[in-house]
Amino acid sequence: MKRIAVLQAGGPTPVLNASLASFVEKARSSGHLLFIQGGYQGLADGHFIEASDTFLAWICNNAHVPGACLGAGRFQLKEKTFNLCIQQLQQHRIDTLVGIGGNGTMAALHKLSEHARQMEMDLQIVGIPKTVDNDISCTDHAPGFGSAARYVATSTRDMSRDLLAMKGFEKVRVLETMGRHTGWLAAASGLLREYDEEGPHFIGIPEEVIDPEHLTETVGDALAKFGSALIVVSEGVLWERERPVARAQVNGRHILGGVSQQIAHYLEKQLGVDGIRSELFGMNQRSFSMAVSDIDRAEARAVGETAARLMNDGETDFMVSIRRQDSYTYSTTMEAVPIQEVFVQGEQTMPKQWIHHPENYHHWLRPLVGEGMPSYPRPL
Amino acid sequence: MKRIAVLQAGGPTPVLNASLASFVEKARSSGHLLFIQGGYQGLADGHFIEASDTFLAWICNNAHVPGACLGAGRFQLKEKTFNLCIQQLQQHRIDTLVGIGGNGTMAALHKLSEHARQMEMDLQIVGIPKTVDNDISCTDHAPGFGSAARYVATSTRDMSRDLLAMKGFEKVRVLETMGRHTGWLAAASGLLREYDEEGPHFIGIPEEVIDPEHLTETVGDALAKFGSALIVVSEGVLWERERPVARAQVNGRHILGGVSQQIAHYLEKQLGVDGIRSELFGMNQRSFSMAVSDIDRAEARAVGETAARLMNDGETDFMVSIRRQDSYTYSTTMEAVPIQEVFVQGEQTMPKQWIHHPENYHHWLRPLVGEGMPSYPRPL
Repeated sequence: MKRIAVLQAGGPTPVLNASLASFVEKARSSGHLLFIQGGYQGLADGHFIEASDTFLAWICNNAHVPGACLGAGRFQLKEKTFNLCIQQLQQHRIDTLVGIGGNGTMAALHKLSEHARQMEMDLQIVGIPKTVDNDISCTDHAPGFGSAARYVATSTRDMSRDLLAMKGFEKVRVLETMGRHTGWLAAASGLLREYDEEGPHFIGIPEEVIDPEHLTETVGDALAKFGSALIVVSEGVLWERERPVARAQVNGRHILGGVSQQIAHYLEKQLGVDGIRSELFGMNQRSFSMAVSDIDRAEARAVGETAARLMNDGETDFMVSIRRQDSYTYSTTMEAVPIQEVFVQGEQTMPKQWIHHPENYHHWLRPLVGEGMPSYPRPL
Repeated sequence: MKRIAVLQAGGPTPVLNASLASFVEKARSSGHLLFIQGGYQGLADGHFIEASDTFLAWICNNAHVPGACLGAGRFQLKEKTFNLCIQQLQQHRIDTLVGIGGNGTMAALHKLSEHARQMEMDLQIVGIPKTVDNDISCTDHAPGFGSAARYVATSTRDMSRDLLAMKGFEKVRVLETMGRHTGWLAAASGLLREYDEEGPHFIGIPEEVIDPEHLTETVGDALAKFGSALIVVSEGVLWERERPVARAQVNGRHILGGVSQQIAHYLEKQLGVDGIRSELFGMNQRSFSMAVSDIDRAEARAVGETAARLMNDGETDFMVSIRRQDSYTYSTTMEAVPIQEVFVQGEQTMPKQWIHHPENYHHWLRPLVGEGMPSYPRPL
């Protein structure tokens, strides 16, 4: 019987466990399932869990739970670690390695596949995409992003109403989304904006360097016209010394966060406005159960199921990709794309024409965030 | 025809406009409605809006919208300003003043009533409670709190699952709720906790000084047992020099925020753990539409309607209060309490027995946050 090892890696999303659960439901009759705890580090260290019926049932019962049943994390795989991973896979007589993750995971899967080939090991490789940043290439979008975008878009509109109410007291706010190298989430903050009075009045994304003068002018204009201004930026936006702002360093990786505070301080000085609040959208972007988009959850399940089906068909070295058939009625199909291609293409940034024509981006985005956000009347 | 002036004051809640809209619907046939823009400052400055049919319809259409249609804010009323307010009320021939707000608003209404009496002005005074902090006395709770508690409780449980998934990489988080002088919101963070592995493992509230050694020990224990620890504190918690941490000062009032960061730095040193993340629950506590509790919205409407009914009955110098009839089936009635009593009692802090027996607090809290939070399985 085929021995299938499954891992999750990268940061969690609110629908990551839905992909795992639906893969497991579909694949449990296809072979003997093993689970690797703690991503690639867990693989290198040999943290394998043999799947009992109780464990399989536990995975399936977690389909609606945020986080990652198998543990997530951000380990950079080094050359010598790849060999350790292959040794572990050989020792546990693994035929198929399934990885649920983002860009880093797809790159690691691709390299593991190459190492296995060099070591003449027959290893089937299956990639299941997940991200809140939407920076995976070779797919229309990836599960996790729709829910994160729903959270950011709704929060921004609601906080904008709060700010308009408080403008006699607090005039400018700078909000910060996730997004290390791409602006998909920050740009989603404008999705529900219906009136000029509502924010965001300025969106800063990593794809384009912020011009401080243009920012000051835009915020000053909004202040003059509406009495308040709301700014949204990605954590990875380039500011001042044109490097992203890091607030900590863990395992050699810079944890971003804090650029919103720098921008708030800058605007206080430039505009002579006191007490500008900066705020991170924070962990809820990747975990808040109440903002999960129905379509995002359904697609998270569908990529898991499709991965199991294609695996059973004997496909290898692929990632499941979501292909949009029709953007007016929003229909999609799931297909395999070469994982090498995902690796080669690297991070998917926002297309220029969507940055400069947000209405086109919003048209593309709207079906992903789901329903249930009623219109608000124009503010006073 | 009676002339009725309405204002909102203090910080917004996601259901503040629901109270305003339901008051307006019920009171529009009782007299001529005027609206004061910008709270007490707006009253002193004479920012009255004559209610056209369009304006009344706009108010009613905002019942589901966060923020505050009439503007919110945090102005401290001084003695000389009271006289200005009374002059404005006289000039606009106001018979009834209706204020929707928190403790500060009820105190101001009470003092305005006294000033009016001294100046031999016949002024009916109506108070409608709202707060996310739940610090208004003479009522079981106030509208706005249930939704904020729902947001905090759900976010904490979801972020806890995220942290458990990330524990190979990130081990401790410190989250910060609103709550200047009271811990109701921070204590709500434990409502959905079902298993020891889940956070919060420590809750800090303004009612009790945090003992740093006890905190370190508790967090250390959780780390040893579960590999991660989640801490929740109120923004107004007393720490180190036993003063709340302020991050800015606006209009002479300290804006709290930042104690979570100080605690994170302290724990990094004490426990030798790198990169402890601190995060504010932020503006969403008082504005996020997706976390509104059905019962909270219904009660926000009910206090508005009750205010209009009691006003029509000729009651004065009262605040609408929610009285809990039965905590097992959760039934409530609405009644008038003397606004002087609300003023005299001041801020309502958490009872000692609920601080030390959270299960009793949770029993009281559960009906207020509403339904729709399914159980999660025990973490691995």
